[in-house]
Amino acid sequence: MNKLEMMYEGKAKKVYRTDNPDYYWVEYKDDATAFNGQKKGTIENKGVVNNKVSAVLFQLMESKGIPTHFVELVNDREMIVKALDIIKVEVVVRNIVAGSLAKRIGLPEGTVLPKTVLEYYYKDDELGDPLINDYHIAALGLATPEQMEYISTTALKVNNILREYLAPINIDLVDFKLEFGLHHGQVLLGDEISPDTCRFWDKTTGEKLDKDRFRRDLGNVEGAYQEVLRRLQA
Amino acid sequence: MNKLEMMYEGKAKKVYRTDNPDYYWVEYKDDATAFNGQKKGTIENKGVVNNKVSAVLFQLMESKGIPTHFVELVNDREMIVKALDIIKVEVVVRNIVAGSLAKRIGLPEGTVLPKTVLEYYYKDDELGDPLINDYHIAALGLATPEQMEYISTTALKVNNILREYLAPINIDLVDFKLEFGLHHGQVLLGDEISPDTCRFWDKTTGEKLDKDRFRRDLGNVEGAYQEVLRRLQA
Ligand SMILES: Nc1ncnc2c1ncn2[C@@H]1O[C@H](COP(=O)(O)OP(=O)(O)O)[C@@H](O)[C@H]1O
Ligand SMILES: Nc1ncnc2c1ncn2[C@@H]1O[C@H](COP(=O)(O)OP(=O)(O)O)[C@@H](O)[C@H]1O
Ligand SMILES: [Mg+2]
Ligand SMILES: [Mg+2]
Repeated sequence: MNKLEMMYEGKAKKVYRTDNPDYYWVEYKDDATAFNGQKKGTIENKGVVNNKVSAVLFQLMESKGIPTHFVELVNDREMIVKALDIIKVEVVVRNIVAGSLAKRIGLPEGTVLPKTVLEYYYKDDELGDPLINDYHIAALGLATPEQMEYISTTALKVNNILREYLAPINIDLVDFKLEFGLHHGQVLLGDEISPDTCRFWDKTTGEKLDKDRFRRDLGNVEGAYQEVLRRLQA
Repeated sequence: MNKLEMMYEGKAKKVYRTDNPDYYWVEYKDDATAFNGQKKGTIENKGVVNNKVSAVLFQLMESKGIPTHFVELVNDREMIVKALDIIKVEVVVRNIVAGSLAKRIGLPEGTVLPKTVLEYYYKDDELGDPLINDYHIAALGLATPEQMEYISTTALKVNNILREYLAPINIDLVDFKLEFGLHHGQVLLGDEISPDTCRFWDKTTGEKLDKDRFRRDLGNVEGAYQEVLRRLQA
């Protein structure tokens, strides 16, 4: 397969066409942004970590029967994925209160949620990725009710699979964001699953092993990303 | 029944105990606030209009089989209601895009929604009444899933009843906010249904006949409130 012209460059990845219209070539960047693009920086080798972590976790999902866009790794920072028509809904799953949820509902960060919380955000940078619900999704025509039914069920499955997988490597899964897309009419799990899109807390120390180290200037950002990859490969 | 001590004063109403613990005495004020209390003012005789409009519309709901807290009017600005344990969820029903929905999803005000939109807001002034979903409601323990099922179904019924009732008096129901509460374990429709809590647009001219005249300094605020009452009494 050959890497052809770039189709779009996002905040964390570049997506290229290939000579097969069914496949895209994704390059993970070291660029880091936060707070809807207001904070910008670089996390050395983040692209390498996120590419590899995503590959491991997409393969885990496939092994549990959840279809994803992942095809194969090309090299340290690049993977081949199935071409998706991205559904403009970011799906957030939360087990522990953190970040915007603490602000929204006034519970302190770290509160264990009695039941998993699912949230939808409209993937629209100009609007600041606002929280939306099923009615907004229908009004905007972002997805059909059947697609949303599949997506919500799958997101909760992904949560259970990830939690179980991360527990033995001493990581608490606080929350994470998923994106889905359509490939020849089928809904596939897309985008990435990485320390950029998940909150990982060390089970013992509570140490943050994710992008919050960058957002909140906690130091040792690179080290935390490397640590996640190290534990996944151990 | 006797009016006893005031229990709480809100932004638009005062609630008093009575000598019957099952009933409260509500006094509608002329005070007007907007933008989570940042804008303050007075709308002359708003209390009278909202008391009477609410009485008409609660009686309409009762006649259609929807149980409400309304008991009887005492005078121009006061009514007796059943004592409720208010559920801290504001239920918003929208037929046409306006206000915060235009900002949230980026559709222009006035867009007719293909399907009615239902939204829940956490009734918490300090948090700024944030949008929430069923998962947040469960996590916060604000209501049971069964109560929310009843509330959502009832809110959509109220919408249909109101639209049908307002059409012949040449009013488009753009959106409105409801509050529900528990009375001896039963969920009742509470609070008020008025130009403070609904957006009413004249069907012919599009003229706003609601609190947006105050929020946006459109003038003739008092006249618009009076006009709604006049049409309902015609
Ligand atoms: N399989 C795929 N097919 C097409 N687009 C994809 C696929 N996976 C992810 N994308 C999209 O690639 C774009 C670039 O990713 P990213 O840099 O994370 O963007 P963003 O700035 O929106 O977060 C995003 O719009 C993402 O939704
Ligand atoms: N039947 C009822 N029993 C008890 N409280 C009620 C009832 N109906 C409305 N309330 C509450 O009365 C309070 C005063 O109303 P309002 O002035 O509109 O308050 P707010 O400032 O919260 O909008 C509100 O908290 C409202 O939820
Ligand atoms: Mg992204
Ligand atoms: Mg009120």
